[in-house]
Amino acid sequence: MSNALASAPLDAAAFVKSQIRTVPDWPQAGVQFRDITPLLQHPKTFRVLIDLFVQRYIDAKLDYIAGLDARGFIIGPVLAYELNVGFIPIRKQGKLPYRTESQSYELEYGTATVEIHADACGAGDRVLIVDDLIATGGTMMAGKQLLERLGAVVIEGAAIIDLPELGGSALLRSAGLPLFTVTEFSGH
Amino acid sequence: MSNALASAPLDAAAFVKSQIRTVPDWPQAGVQFRDITPLLQHPKTFRVLIDLFVQRYIDAKLDYIAGLDARGFIIGPVLAYELNVGFIPIRKQGKLPYRTESQSYELEYGTATVEIHADACGAGDRVLIVDDLIATGGTMMAGKQLLERLGAVVIEGAAIIDLPELGGSALLRSAGLPLFTVTEFSGH
Repeated sequence: MSNALASAPLDAAAFVKSQIRTVPDWPQAGVQFRDITPLLQHPKTFRVLIDLFVQRYIDAKLDYIAGLDARGFIIGPVLAYELNVGFIPIRKQGKLPYRTESQSYELEYGTATVEIHADACGAGDRVLIVDDLIATGGTMMAGKQLLERLGAVVIEGAAIIDLPELGGSALLRSAGLPLFTVTEFSGH
Repeated sequence: MSNALASAPLDAAAFVKSQIRTVPDWPQAGVQFRDITPLLQHPKTFRVLIDLFVQRYIDAKLDYIAGLDARGFIIGPVLAYELNVGFIPIRKQGKLPYRTESQSYELEYGTATVEIHADACGAGDRVLIVDDLIATGGTMMAGKQLLERLGAVVIEGAAIIDLPELGGSALLRSAGLPLFTVTEFSGH
């Protein structure tokens, strides 16, 4: 990345998109994987990325950020710290030690299960769900269901990347979850 | 947690320790699991916790924070954002899409493997490794080996909790890695 200072204000979303690395044929032939690790590697891209979310939610009166295991943990806690709200990890099955609520969802082959601590939040709490990417939307939908089972109000789902062709963002919106994504990619 | 304001300055480490929940007999009978989720749940404890690390490393001239999958991702990126340095995820096998370096280590039964992107950092970069807890030290040792294979200088390992009876912190220190932990627990 060049250290030269441009003369115009930064287009934050375009800058973030330009720093995402596409890895062809991973995890299987024909898939274009969108790799966010270069965004994290450079202090400037990471700050620009995080600030897009902080500025959006600075006056949203959130009570909690819920992050989806594991890449949602890279963004969610930074937002929680900056916004002075709590962080709730929603984890893969068998990782949370206390009393949990579980929700299964369908994958292409088989099912997966995510869990939340039963005392993670309570009735009327305003929660934002965060992940790195929305593909089929299954994990975020399961997270929404878990939070609502605890009485929380899920005000939005947020991610860096939307892959609209996989249908997840349309599915989540049709289930009543507003979404905010920084950028999107076609092709997968 | 009480909202009453105390008349004396906060003892940050004691406050953090007081908010860690011990879950008996998890993941197996006889184990006292130290659960950090209450630290994340309350904005005040999370801020006090993170600020202990930020204040320690504010002038350490770090280039990167490396976080260990998955609970190290909850602390590491907040430090990276606050300190204006990059974040490097060290992940369980098969999760990183680009060219990787791998390191295996021994568990009680069998082995585990962690990976780093081969271009995550370079010669002479000053890196701090972060995790939630030091038990046997195997994961942090493997992370140190990966970073050093890329030419980095691992200046310290940091965690919220040390379980000294499991021997990990002594092992890591004897291998030349200075450590910083906020609190420790006896018994396991």
